[in-house]
Amino acid sequence: MKTILIVGDGMADRPLKELGGRTPLEAAETPNLDAVAAGGVCGIMDIIAPGRPPGSDVANLTLLGYDPLECYRGRGALEAMGAGLAVRRGDVAFRGNFAHVDDDEVVVDRRAGRIDGSVFGEHLSGIRLDAYPDVEVTVRPTLAHRLAVILRGEGLSWRVSDIDPHKTGVRVLRSRPLDGTAEAERTAAIVNELYRVLREMLRSHPLNKRREEEGLPPANAVILRGAGEPPAVTPLTDLYGVRGACVAVTPTVRGACLAAGFDLYDAPGATGGVDTDAVSKAREAERILPRYDLVFLHVKGTDVASHDGDPELKVRVIEKIDGMVRHLLDHVGPAETYLAVTADHTTSIRVRDHRGDPVPVAILGPEVRADGVSSYSERACAGGGLGRIRGKDLMPILLNLQDRVALYGS
Amino acid sequence: MKTILIVGDGMADRPLKELGGRTPLEAAETPNLDAVAAGGVCGIMDIIAPGRPPGSDVANLTLLGYDPLECYRGRGALEAMGAGLAVRRGDVAFRGNFAHVDDDEVVVDRRAGRIDGSVFGEHLSGIRLDAYPDVEVTVRPTLAHRLAVILRGEGLSWRVSDIDPHKTGVRVLRSRPLDGTAEAERTAAIVNELYRVLREMLRSHPLNKRREEEGLPPANAVILRGAGEPPAVTPLTDLYGVRGACVAVTPTVRGACLAAGFDLYDAPGATGGVDTDAVSKAREAERILPRYDLVFLHVKGTDVASHDGDPELKVRVIEKIDGMVRHLLDHVGPAETYLAVTADHTTSIRVRDHRGDPVPVAILGPEVRADGVSSYSERACAGGGLGRIRGKDLMPILLNLQDRVALYGS
Repeated sequence: MKTILIVGDGMADRPLKELGGRTPLEAAETPNLDAVAAGGVCGIMDIIAPGRPPGSDVANLTLLGYDPLECYRGRGALEAMGAGLAVRRGDVAFRGNFAHVDDDEVVVDRRAGRIDGSVFGEHLSGIRLDAYPDVEVTVRPTLAHRLAVILRGEGLSWRVSDIDPHKTGVRVLRSRPLDGTAEAERTAAIVNELYRVLREMLRSHPLNKRREEEGLPPANAVILRGAGEPPAVTPLTDLYGVRGACVAVTPTVRGACLAAGFDLYDAPGATGGVDTDAVSKAREAERILPRYDLVFLHVKGTDVASHDGDPELKVRVIEKIDGMVRHLLDHVGPAETYLAVTADHTTSIRVRDHRGDPVPVAILGPEVRADGVSSYSERACAGGGLGRIRGKDLMPILLNLQDRVALYGS
Repeated sequence: MKTILIVGDGMADRPLKELGGRTPLEAAETPNLDAVAAGGVCGIMDIIAPGRPPGSDVANLTLLGYDPLECYRGRGALEAMGAGLAVRRGDVAFRGNFAHVDDDEVVVDRRAGRIDGSVFGEHLSGIRLDAYPDVEVTVRPTLAHRLAVILRGEGLSWRVSDIDPHKTGVRVLRSRPLDGTAEAERTAAIVNELYRVLREMLRSHPLNKRREEEGLPPANAVILRGAGEPPAVTPLTDLYGVRGACVAVTPTVRGACLAAGFDLYDAPGATGGVDTDAVSKAREAERILPRYDLVFLHVKGTDVASHDGDPELKVRVIEKIDGMVRHLLDHVGPAETYLAVTADHTTSIRVRDHRGDPVPVAILGPEVRADGVSSYSERACAGGGLGRIRGKDLMPILLNLQDRVALYGS
């Protein structure tokens, strides 16, 4: 028995005036999503708990079956792992940007003109902090102006605040400990020292001098955010003997799946944006399915459209997901495969951010107790046979249908 | 106000091909169960949590209102208590079989030809282990080839593995500690020594010599499983002042009810099998009801039919339960009595084992908020007014309807 779990990032929404009081899922033409609902068992799901909006990191760990209140250790490590870096338990990792700051450390451009940070590649390897000789520092450009930083050594903690102020016109922040431990205090000091060292190096870097001559903003600072350790989870392979694979572009999703013990796959034309080739992802899932028990298939575009506040675009991306589901319905045997469709959170088009409203979920497959729900949406699924479940319950529900969950008791 | 809680063991199921895509509850003719649903409030229930299959021991403790993750201490003590043995807190009890093993300790017959173990009765009392003189050992044959073993003394633990390999053709296992405590290590060593001592005694026992002469498999070993201490629970009598009674044959169910402070009753013709006289159990419940507030009425046959993989048989046992419910509807005043019907878990006919799919529940009685559900089944009840609840919540719901649950806060 196999399972494909399709996650439309931020796909759920609230009723929108622009769509005549419908949600984007209700407004979109989705005959294939509706077929999953009609043949399957449906419900609504609170990722964390009713009214609690999850971040993407928390949401994806939860969909993988982990209790976010127990396992969550920040986003940085997930992101770095998802970008292909090795992060060990005890390491603390950060997301970061190459930024342009002025002489008073005020942020002028958080992305330094969307510089391609890889130009600094060789100059950033082998960074050492004289004040912390026992801490190993990795600074690795990832995509465009983005980078990952990993600190390795004894006595580190992820409970430190961002130095990225998340806006321009204000000074870079100093990292502070977020709890009372000596480890958090030490790590915050290391982050502040690392900022200083990188600032010195970049300020006088020949590449930046050249950029200034060309009238481009120099990438003269690195601002960090999202400190994190790897989540405190046991791979699903170990817990349930399930062989899992992930088809996703988004680094955080890939990192969460990696933590769960999944293999990572790319699909040609999958971009992580609204222009993604969703059917290509379905083809990739179909291709690898013989080797796996569970494929986690993630589409980011719905969230991108939501953060952009564009209802029509969100409807179009949902229709792309519908096409992806059509491919799976046509090509993957429904007698041996469960198809589950959900969202990792509600993203409100109006507020352009995640919200704590529940998400719809539908599971189609050989032994589900199909209910009378006939279309896939937030409201239609609320009447389904799953009732209202929690995010961390979805994975046990799917694995129970695969007969993989051991009895508690005897 | 009185309550009768009817538990069909493993009564819930998944849709079955053999029944045209219906579950056994959907396929059975159940006008009386349907009347409970139609007049009552319905829902579905996850005994532990969605997707988590419970063992029988865990399930019954949960239906009695206890949190299984907090109170569960293994099956052995429940089973021994249910068989009428006194088990104290701190004792460790086991289920066991008289078995036939060869000279290499390979299990030839896990039931030694279904020997009546009571023939050894007097020879098994007063067993002492020279290596553990402070440990009191009770070995008591129960039914047919089955027995209970109780260890009493300081420093024992239930966290030890079975020596019963649960199949033939392999060697008897050595008990191992399941956690890092000295108590578990010591208890495992005691179990292994007890195996050796009983093996010596039985190997040369005159009764076994006679069996061999008669061509019968000798019962030359005792294989133990399911180590357990009494569950860590406070009787419902103390918690809610409720006088409880149990009408059940299955030792584990009786043991769980005993732990909850209930009195135990037998009904003539109740067998614990598919041939049980369910109406006789209803009559017994009716007879004792004046002296109790709550009667826990358990029917095992549905689970037996499920483990046998026989859909038609399961349907027939469900129809027996329907007859039992008819008797109660006819003879117990619905103005003063709540009737609740549920299952302790889903048992899948296809896999012949417990599964984590939710079970239906319906509660009929004077003050329930009756909903529009008109039949009793997994799917129909999913649309009911109880929504989706947890197993440990059912008992407070029932006792709240009896006005027995104290305010939390003021």
